[in-house]
Amino acid sequence: MSTPNVTEQLADWIVNLKPADISAEVRAEGLRTFVNWLGCAVGGADHPSAGHAISAIGPFCGPKTAQVIGRADRLDQLHASLLNGITSHVLDYDDTHLKTIIHPAGPVASALVPLAETRGIPGDKLLTAMIIGVEVECRIGNAVYPDHYDRGWHITGTAGVFGAAAAVGYAIGLNRTQMQWALSLAATQASGLREMFGTMTKSFHPGRAAQNGAFAAHMAEAGFDSALTGIEGRRGFANILSDKQDYDEILEGLGTRWEAALNSYKPYACGIVIHPTIDGCQQLREELGPQKIEQIDAVELTTHPLVLELTGKTSPRTGLEGKFSVYHSAACALLRGDGAPTAFTDEVVNLPAVVALRGKVKATPDPACHEASVTIRLQMKDGSTVEKHVERAIGSRERPLSNAQLEEKFLTQSALVIGQAASEKLLEMAWTLDKISDLGVLTAASIPESDTAEA
Amino acid sequence: MSTPNVTEQLADWIVNLKPADISAEVRAEGLRTFVNWLGCAVGGADHPSAGHAISAIGPFCGPKTAQVIGRADRLDQLHASLLNGITSHVLDYDDTHLKTIIHPAGPVASALVPLAETRGIPGDKLLTAMIIGVEVECRIGNAVYPDHYDRGWHITGTAGVFGAAAAVGYAIGLNRTQMQWALSLAATQASGLREMFGTMTKSFHPGRAAQNGAFAAHMAEAGFDSALTGIEGRRGFANILSDKQDYDEILEGLGTRWEAALNSYKPYACGIVIHPTIDGCQQLREELGPQKIEQIDAVELTTHPLVLELTGKTSPRTGLEGKFSVYHSAACALLRGDGAPTAFTDEVVNLPAVVALRGKVKATPDPACHEASVTIRLQMKDGSTVEKHVERAIGSRERPLSNAQLEEKFLTQSALVIGQAASEKLLEMAWTLDKISDLGVLTAASIPESDTAEA
Repeated sequence: MSTPNVTEQLADWIVNLKPADISAEVRAEGLRTFVNWLGCAVGGADHPSAGHAISAIGPFCGPKTAQVIGRADRLDQLHASLLNGITSHVLDYDDTHLKTIIHPAGPVASALVPLAETRGIPGDKLLTAMIIGVEVECRIGNAVYPDHYDRGWHITGTAGVFGAAAAVGYAIGLNRTQMQWALSLAATQASGLREMFGTMTKSFHPGRAAQNGAFAAHMAEAGFDSALTGIEGRRGFANILSDKQDYDEILEGLGTRWEAALNSYKPYACGIVIHPTIDGCQQLREELGPQKIEQIDAVELTTHPLVLELTGKTSPRTGLEGKFSVYHSAACALLRGDGAPTAFTDEVVNLPAVVALRGKVKATPDPACHEASVTIRLQMKDGSTVEKHVERAIGSRERPLSNAQLEEKFLTQSALVIGQAASEKLLEMAWTLDKISDLGVLTAASIPESDTAEA
Repeated sequence: MSTPNVTEQLADWIVNLKPADISAEVRAEGLRTFVNWLGCAVGGADHPSAGHAISAIGPFCGPKTAQVIGRADRLDQLHASLLNGITSHVLDYDDTHLKTIIHPAGPVASALVPLAETRGIPGDKLLTAMIIGVEVECRIGNAVYPDHYDRGWHITGTAGVFGAAAAVGYAIGLNRTQMQWALSLAATQASGLREMFGTMTKSFHPGRAAQNGAFAAHMAEAGFDSALTGIEGRRGFANILSDKQDYDEILEGLGTRWEAALNSYKPYACGIVIHPTIDGCQQLREELGPQKIEQIDAVELTTHPLVLELTGKTSPRTGLEGKFSVYHSAACALLRGDGAPTAFTDEVVNLPAVVALRGKVKATPDPACHEASVTIRLQMKDGSTVEKHVERAIGSRERPLSNAQLEEKFLTQSALVIGQAASEKLLEMAWTLDKISDLGVLTAASIPESDTAEA
């Protein structure tokens, strides 16, 4: 069977898509994706990684046409994309396309908002472009998942760069050939290794995907040519970065079956595979009460094997490492009921009570266990046991966050960084994205209250 | 056998290296590498790809602290690195580390010269840093070649980013941990697909490697942390981008056995695998005289199989495609004695006489044939045959270009872009790199005569 001309067909679909081709339902999920992304970008904006990156960028920064979300800093469009990508991912609190574990909004929205502010692109067009970008990256991810991820690629970076290129390319009006170049320029920049997990460089991946994907589109716009077959070519993305290539996942049902409608939003600020455990431990704390938690002698988890592969750190020392420890997460949810960013600070990870309970947690991988499930068994000091089975964790497609829960998540993290009043105003504005003509008004509303007062 | 701590040992070697640790012989080869790179960067400076890239960069360009080699344009340091990397490679006329087909100077020197101009780093330190960068990228290339290249990676991009990170990191004085971060930030950006060959995006690879490697070093300098094991980690560069990992190639004989001393310089402006064919065809033209060339009925080449895999285009339509056609290259060398950039223009590729002779060229792959060898058999119209065997092509390690030949190569390509007088002055200056305290003087000397007159 000959290989279909994937890059060309995909480019053709992107450049010819009309806003009316997207149903109200898909558009509504897109708006939830945007709101969740914005809250996460504000929530991560004061992370030290952002400060280090901005300091490194200083000597190379171009015209400061774009606000860094959640900070007083302005940067050039591409560097603002990098920063937004870093901050929206750094708390591991963002969205997830569950079929591929791609965090879709990071690379795409992070590229689009600075572009929209710089070039005066209105919110309704931004939303359309974002949905296209998310669709493209998730479909390309589907084509190579799980082989590509198992090999060691951080798929949010590698697939994300296509999403950013498609979204920015659509927003600036590339023609089909230019879009093929942009997708191929994205293909040849696809990168990001899972070795970086647990360091600031993990968040660098969606940031760089946003920046590089946008640059790919701008280079194509300027006439810098590239391959026409960057995705499916013999030496293209799918063949080199994966041993699995299922091009039907990219081409079939384009415009009718929407991956962008399957996005989910993390209720907890850590890797998605730990979520069933935190969900179950929170429920146990709720049901037993705090006093009973002190009587726990041992905690036994039965989980999907990926949980231990990705989050098997037994003795985390920093907040960031805590996100990769199912042991810490279980202890913290039982002791404090917490799975928010506040559960993953250096301080909490080193609290004696947390460390002590963490030492009592054991985890057993079971391939028969679904990724969104867990069984938790508490061995109490009096010899009794309590068991909790979570069939599907909160935040999964079967138990999605409601808009109200999304708002609570937004405000909880955002208020810590820019204050409660500014957060409420920003959230309200985010829901009206479709009506915003000047994105600069929205990004300006994300500046911390203290900084606006000073300015 | 446990995996050695490659990233740490390599970082340790880099940050502790003293200029005196590099022998005069290695240093002299480094200077030849620099001179060759500079000539190529000037030679490619007026290629359309450079104009497109500069136009795309415009809206994002930071403080213009660095000259684009061979042009009147100034850009910020990182974008100048990108441009120099593109132009020094776009004519396929640059240097080659023959064991890996890496073109070493592109990613490394392209990053260093704008850095040196921006931060006031003198020429002798630049030369030391360049030799370190070349050494690092070639050793990392050796560790994964040929598997990595065969899989489809453009190794000049993927290994080059390490070279740029190492060189810039050395020049700005990173400590060991920061250098590990820089190498890991490079690892996670390693990219570049062979699918892009024959388009402008091929040259984008060394450019982006220069820019991204330098950025990796600056991020590490600013405290943005990363993995400590980006090269050898389970999910690191070598394991993910290659099925072969020979870490001895990276660590053994560091500082005593120098890959940087094995660099070679292309006598012809195209892929190195065609060089034996051009060399032999030029010799045949020389020996037979132009009249006899008109009597050729058929040209039969017996070559290494890689020649046809990489340069098997039978009907190139553009100059760039001509570089990937052993058929065009043979015809052009026989008819015009030419293998310089002038042989690979759109015009020459479409000359009726060239097209006609090209149609008479046949090539047969023979695994027993060395990569630097070829056998050429001319079938004449009178029934006679002439045979030429090239055991090692000019430009190979066994038949290196002399300094005089390097100078001729430099002047031939440079004069076309910036004029003869400016080229002669620039070349003279390049040989004194070790004595130059302000690199801005050298880069200013690379501006085309017409532009300096206007300024």
